[in-house]
Amino acid sequence: MEQITPDGARNILAPEELDLMNRYWQAANYLSVGQIYLMNNPLLKEPLAEEDVKPRLLGHWGTTPGLNFIYVHLNRIIKKYDASTIYICGPGHGGPGLVANAYLDGTYTEVYPEITEDTEGMQKLFKQFSFPGGIPSHVAPETPGSIHEGGELGYALVHAFGAAYDNPDLIVACVVGDGEAETGPLAASWHSNKFLNPINDGAVLPILHLNGYKIANPTLMARMSKKDLTDLFQGYGYEPFYVEGDDPEYMHQRMAEVMEECYARIREIQSEARAEGTVYEMPRWPMIILRSPKGWTGPKFVDNKKVEDFWRSHQVPISEARQNADHRSQLEDWLKSYGPEKLFDENGRLIPELKALAPEGDLRMSANPHTNGGVLRKELKMPDFRELAVDVTQPGAVMTSATKRLGMLLREVMKLNAEERNFRLMGPDETASNRLQDVFEVTDRVWMADILDYDEGVARDGRVMEVLSEHLCQGWLEGYLLTGRHGLFSCYEAFIHIIDSMFNQHAKWLKTTQHMAWRKPISSLNYLLTSHVWRQDHNGFSHQDPGFIDHVVNKKADVVRTYFPPDANTLLVVGDHILRTYNRVNVIVAGKQPQPQWLSIEEAIVHCDTGLGEWKWASNVPEGEEPDVVMAAAGDVPTLEMMAAVDILRQKLPEMKVKVVNVVDLMALQPKEEHPHGIRDVDFDALFTENKPVIFAYHGYPWLIHRLAYRRHNHNNIHVRGYVEEGTTTTPFDMVVQNRLDRYHLAMDAIERAGGFGERGAAALNYLKEMRAKHHDYVREHGQDMPEILDWKWPYPKG
Amino acid sequence: MEQITPDGARNILAPEELDLMNRYWQAANYLSVGQIYLMNNPLLKEPLAEEDVKPRLLGHWGTTPGLNFIYVHLNRIIKKYDASTIYICGPGHGGPGLVANAYLDGTYTEVYPEITEDTEGMQKLFKQFSFPGGIPSHVAPETPGSIHEGGELGYALVHAFGAAYDNPDLIVACVVGDGEAETGPLAASWHSNKFLNPINDGAVLPILHLNGYKIANPTLMARMSKKDLTDLFQGYGYEPFYVEGDDPEYMHQRMAEVMEECYARIREIQSEARAEGTVYEMPRWPMIILRSPKGWTGPKFVDNKKVEDFWRSHQVPISEARQNADHRSQLEDWLKSYGPEKLFDENGRLIPELKALAPEGDLRMSANPHTNGGVLRKELKMPDFRELAVDVTQPGAVMTSATKRLGMLLREVMKLNAEERNFRLMGPDETASNRLQDVFEVTDRVWMADILDYDEGVARDGRVMEVLSEHLCQGWLEGYLLTGRHGLFSCYEAFIHIIDSMFNQHAKWLKTTQHMAWRKPISSLNYLLTSHVWRQDHNGFSHQDPGFIDHVVNKKADVVRTYFPPDANTLLVVGDHILRTYNRVNVIVAGKQPQPQWLSIEEAIVHCDTGLGEWKWASNVPEGEEPDVVMAAAGDVPTLEMMAAVDILRQKLPEMKVKVVNVVDLMALQPKEEHPHGIRDVDFDALFTENKPVIFAYHGYPWLIHRLAYRRHNHNNIHVRGYVEEGTTTTPFDMVVQNRLDRYHLAMDAIERAGGFGERGAAALNYLKEMRAKHHDYVREHGQDMPEILDWKWPYPKG
Repeated sequence: MEQITPDGARNILAPEELDLMNRYWQAANYLSVGQIYLMNNPLLKEPLAEEDVKPRLLGHWGTTPGLNFIYVHLNRIIKKYDASTIYICGPGHGGPGLVANAYLDGTYTEVYPEITEDTEGMQKLFKQFSFPGGIPSHVAPETPGSIHEGGELGYALVHAFGAAYDNPDLIVACVVGDGEAETGPLAASWHSNKFLNPINDGAVLPILHLNGYKIANPTLMARMSKKDLTDLFQGYGYEPFYVEGDDPEYMHQRMAEVMEECYARIREIQSEARAEGTVYEMPRWPMIILRSPKGWTGPKFVDNKKVEDFWRSHQVPISEARQNADHRSQLEDWLKSYGPEKLFDENGRLIPELKALAPEGDLRMSANPHTNGGVLRKELKMPDFRELAVDVTQPGAVMTSATKRLGMLLREVMKLNAEERNFRLMGPDETASNRLQDVFEVTDRVWMADILDYDEGVARDGRVMEVLSEHLCQGWLEGYLLTGRHGLFSCYEAFIHIIDSMFNQHAKWLKTTQHMAWRKPISSLNYLLTSHVWRQDHNGFSHQDPGFIDHVVNKKADVVRTYFPPDANTLLVVGDHILRTYNRVNVIVAGKQPQPQWLSIEEAIVHCDTGLGEWKWASNVPEGEEPDVVMAAAGDVPTLEMMAAVDILRQKLPEMKVKVVNVVDLMALQPKEEHPHGIRDVDFDALFTENKPVIFAYHGYPWLIHRLAYRRHNHNNIHVRGYVEEGTTTTPFDMVVQNRLDRYHLAMDAIERAGGFGERGAAALNYLKEMRAKHHDYVREHGQDMPEILDWKWPYPKG
Repeated sequence: MEQITPDGARNILAPEELDLMNRYWQAANYLSVGQIYLMNNPLLKEPLAEEDVKPRLLGHWGTTPGLNFIYVHLNRIIKKYDASTIYICGPGHGGPGLVANAYLDGTYTEVYPEITEDTEGMQKLFKQFSFPGGIPSHVAPETPGSIHEGGELGYALVHAFGAAYDNPDLIVACVVGDGEAETGPLAASWHSNKFLNPINDGAVLPILHLNGYKIANPTLMARMSKKDLTDLFQGYGYEPFYVEGDDPEYMHQRMAEVMEECYARIREIQSEARAEGTVYEMPRWPMIILRSPKGWTGPKFVDNKKVEDFWRSHQVPISEARQNADHRSQLEDWLKSYGPEKLFDENGRLIPELKALAPEGDLRMSANPHTNGGVLRKELKMPDFRELAVDVTQPGAVMTSATKRLGMLLREVMKLNAEERNFRLMGPDETASNRLQDVFEVTDRVWMADILDYDEGVARDGRVMEVLSEHLCQGWLEGYLLTGRHGLFSCYEAFIHIIDSMFNQHAKWLKTTQHMAWRKPISSLNYLLTSHVWRQDHNGFSHQDPGFIDHVVNKKADVVRTYFPPDANTLLVVGDHILRTYNRVNVIVAGKQPQPQWLSIEEAIVHCDTGLGEWKWASNVPEGEEPDVVMAAAGDVPTLEMMAAVDILRQKLPEMKVKVVNVVDLMALQPKEEHPHGIRDVDFDALFTENKPVIFAYHGYPWLIHRLAYRRHNHNNIHVRGYVEEGTTTTPFDMVVQNRLDRYHLAMDAIERAGGFGERGAAALNYLKEMRAKHHDYVREHGQDMPEILDWKWPYPKG
């Protein structure tokens, strides 16, 4: 690698300090290589034998020495300035490095007492890595000091910013690999600086690590000209500092110098803004561009093939180290090149002068409490949602927007926790459009760029975060939650699929941490999915997709919850509930358009408590008798159509005994053994009968209902209507008609499945067919729904 | 809006040309507003009445005038230079503008003859927009000249590059809105220039349209300093040209000037490279940054609230135009401000001197054949895959990597179609790692940045596209397919979720076009999902997710196909098949690790033809008798475990009659009425019996099998094992054990479900439990699977 000499590099480190820091780095590198290769003989006191090497070599060396290099230099700054700092490791496959550093500073042994700071502990440390029953090869929930797995690339920087918001004393150092830097989410994440307030937020120090190669390929950024690279990051709004080379001595001096400069720059920005009490223009935060060889300090060639500073060092550079004696000997030389005898004492303990380089206590990056957010988490102060309730005496009489009420709840939450600054709302530019605008009575959208005099609802210290990137909304919120705070992400239902994969990673993180006592519970990841499939009649087919729920329920039942409140009061109850939960993913689907209100707040509390139930006031089954049909619904629009269908049936076929059931908590449909919210079979049977037809109007893809109710006795009689990928720009009612979820079709289903009901049934069916035909012609002529649809109201008084 | 005066703006347009161009723009704006508002009285020959205005106003004005402005200037360049150009509209909600322009140049009437070029046609054009039974509000498949819906933001630029690759004569003008510019995929897409070869590829002209606002918010890029903005795009590798202002006369002159400069720059880059025959360094392509007011030329204030140049102009600026007479009058003034009487003749036809501004025939952007790729599509030349087959005489005896064989097939395809240059392979840096490396015998990875002397497999004209962004891989391929070419995207199974939402949009596009005769079929979107869930024992839990299939099957059955070839020969057959199909999404899941080979190529052809079938050579059911149990598998690892389970059963319980079934085409499990590949009930019953237990080992989440087979007679007896979200870094066999998909568990399932088989059955169960316990201890001690697992081979000779 070409040595690029910077202008005016200063020798910051005295020779002794440089030597100590270099040896600390070597110790971390030694422990990293040891984890990848060894299961015995950790200090190489004996010649390296076949059985000392693991039979399956799984791990990634290439990025690791760079990660370790950064670590020791961050340690120096932390120690020198008592600067609370955490380390987000974008290249999460550099797991051995982060584990090594947690072991060196003592945290690892505190968390895992069996991994002692001696030869035996080191042997266990080595063996457990990527070993059955041991620890994962990546930075993982098991890794102390981590809030970021880094397996799926793209989210390091957005997590870093999420962690920094509202943590004014924290520095978040974030290593971005040049592989990860190619991803879309990462490319957008650089703009997160436009949302970071130097007064109330902490600092993010991005470290772009250019090691030149991915698995088999050069990286884009490593091959950009320095001019382009500098322009790019200046354009993003940063001040880039370069550390480039491969000579350790030079690199230590240069890195120390740049770290000092960056630290000083961060504190200068913060203290200026904090002294002023306001921010006149967006600060230009520093960042580091570190160009160092991939697989630095590892073997330069293996079998005459270039390895160091090339893609071949990505994983296990010497692949046959167990079976092949030449390879084994090269491995031994490599390990010994770090001089383990100068790093660890006779008993395998890091020698004291090296140990002294690490920060202590909570200042250790591996022990910083922000990386175990549950220990810092405070419960939200919650308002009494009853005071925000809609007054519902006659079901269906009042029309209101459900999300508007949720907005009122969020406004109160925002207000009650304003001082604590531990609650944020994220969304891609749709908070107001999704009818949550009441939050803007008490806060604004955060905005660090220029604000014009006619702008509305944007401010330097806003607590609503809007950016047209679902990736950023999701990633910020994840980082915010993982560091012990609370929040909610409101999103168009169709476009939440953009973060399917991010949800996966977060759900997997939660699943894993639930079995780890030392990780304290964090607040749930809460979604409000609105502007949903049934109300995308204006944006059309591309905006219609209710499949996120299907995606969610593939994850562990412990972790996921899905709610379909049919009206504003049930949404209030659900909203209040989810903000009190932890270690879950809660998905609420609720529309923003005015809809009939069904339940009083007290009824809503009862209904949400079991998650589903009969709406007796809507059924017409005499006490003690069996229904002819069960009409069930989950979702606000399905509930509306179902209630209208029931009305039609009661008018046209009053002899038909119709039982009305509503489902808020979809997970209640599952057996108790499969989901903690599942109801008992006996209760399911009591509700849905054992043998009567059930017409089920569901918000999403119909199949999910079959899946959830599959083990129930009556499952073969459940007939589900939902979204079947039909739609375009049309009217709201035409959307349900196109997918056969409309009142007419539901009523037809009921009559047909309940046996036809003779001549009167046939007449009713005819009427329903006629109404469908009438609708078809009417909307195409008038461009809006028929008055009987728009004006329909549930006509039966309660009780 | 501040008028930023550029240095040295020249007056390119003579006054007459300027006047004509401005009027053409006004005509497009008039037609756009008309579509949003009017259902009658299209030329305002009568005073605007309530019933002339649509009852529901659905559409987006804000972006539209800018889109129209760009359109007329592109038309000028196309006409002047005969430059084949297509228009990718990132802000797809500006649909009225693109429809208006297609109508103005005559294409719309050619495609939809009922929309005539007269008053009556204009009335229909207006009414149909966002109207039930009419056309969507967005740019959609229905829009002539479009390959890009633009509803879900983020993919405009990547589609543009996909369209430009291997289209050397084409210019792809791509409008990126400043909302879209905030998304991750778009932020990464700018780097696509590093993959565009000026010799063999066409040009992309990005036009970043800064209109300042999203739905309710300023945009990030509109508020960046000009210095930062310029740095950013120079950093990305472009040469930005600014067009900024709001005075139409100045803006036309400036835009004309910049368009001329950009066009000249493009042709200069191309002709230099083409004359040289090689590319020494990456060209710096031009781009345009257009800063114009949102809602330009629309109402400045409505009800005393700022509308033009503000977010309030995003959708329908005058919202009560039907009911409110003041609003209606303001709308009338707005429409008349364009002077329709000077644009259209008495009969509503565009006046000839304006018509003359549009290009003709295929040069019209709305008629350019590249936007209806099926008309240009040529079938791939296919090799005889039989020649690449693995020789399999004894099932299970040969071990090989299935994807290696697919790589050989792809190599041949690459070779046979090299001259045509219409086939590309995409993947995030994993082509070789996924064992498709044989393609590198005939081509390289395309790379326009510096190439070092020790780099391998990168070249200026490579046909493999690798970038660590699934979004770019997917988007490039979509753009490539939509313009009539072929390709395949190979990806880690878990991380294909990153493009869930892009898949949605593409599948929806395909579903819509299938009913449009004028859109010709395009090649299928083909995925190879490898490095799959069962072989992510080295990367761990975050890399384990087989849920993409579940996501895919939620889309219309017509469009989706999913394949699980159990070995190399079946993969060859499937690979050959999918490359011949059109208008579909084909998903193949196949591992890259060496696996036992089961079928000869002739057997594989038969097996893949029905999509599933009994492996008679593996069953031990005497002719004419019923099995005790059906052992079925879908997927390579499940097949291996199932075969090993069958072996155990045959050895421990030879009296048990076991029928072995294998499923390649998952869609075959569905009834014929639900999927075109579904088999008949009678065939399903013959295969799976009507009442015997079926143990089904499935690659993914178990639920999908229940879903697909739900309507089959024997569905209640199907017992599925699959991935249940258990896993970490461990051994391959431990992965299946943790999810109970292992041979021992499958054999236990069979014995238990088939009634227990008395004492011998109990003994066999004991043996199986012991083996599981033995495995548990063995892997934790040795770090690799037991020899009996590693060495197991199917022991029965065939026939």
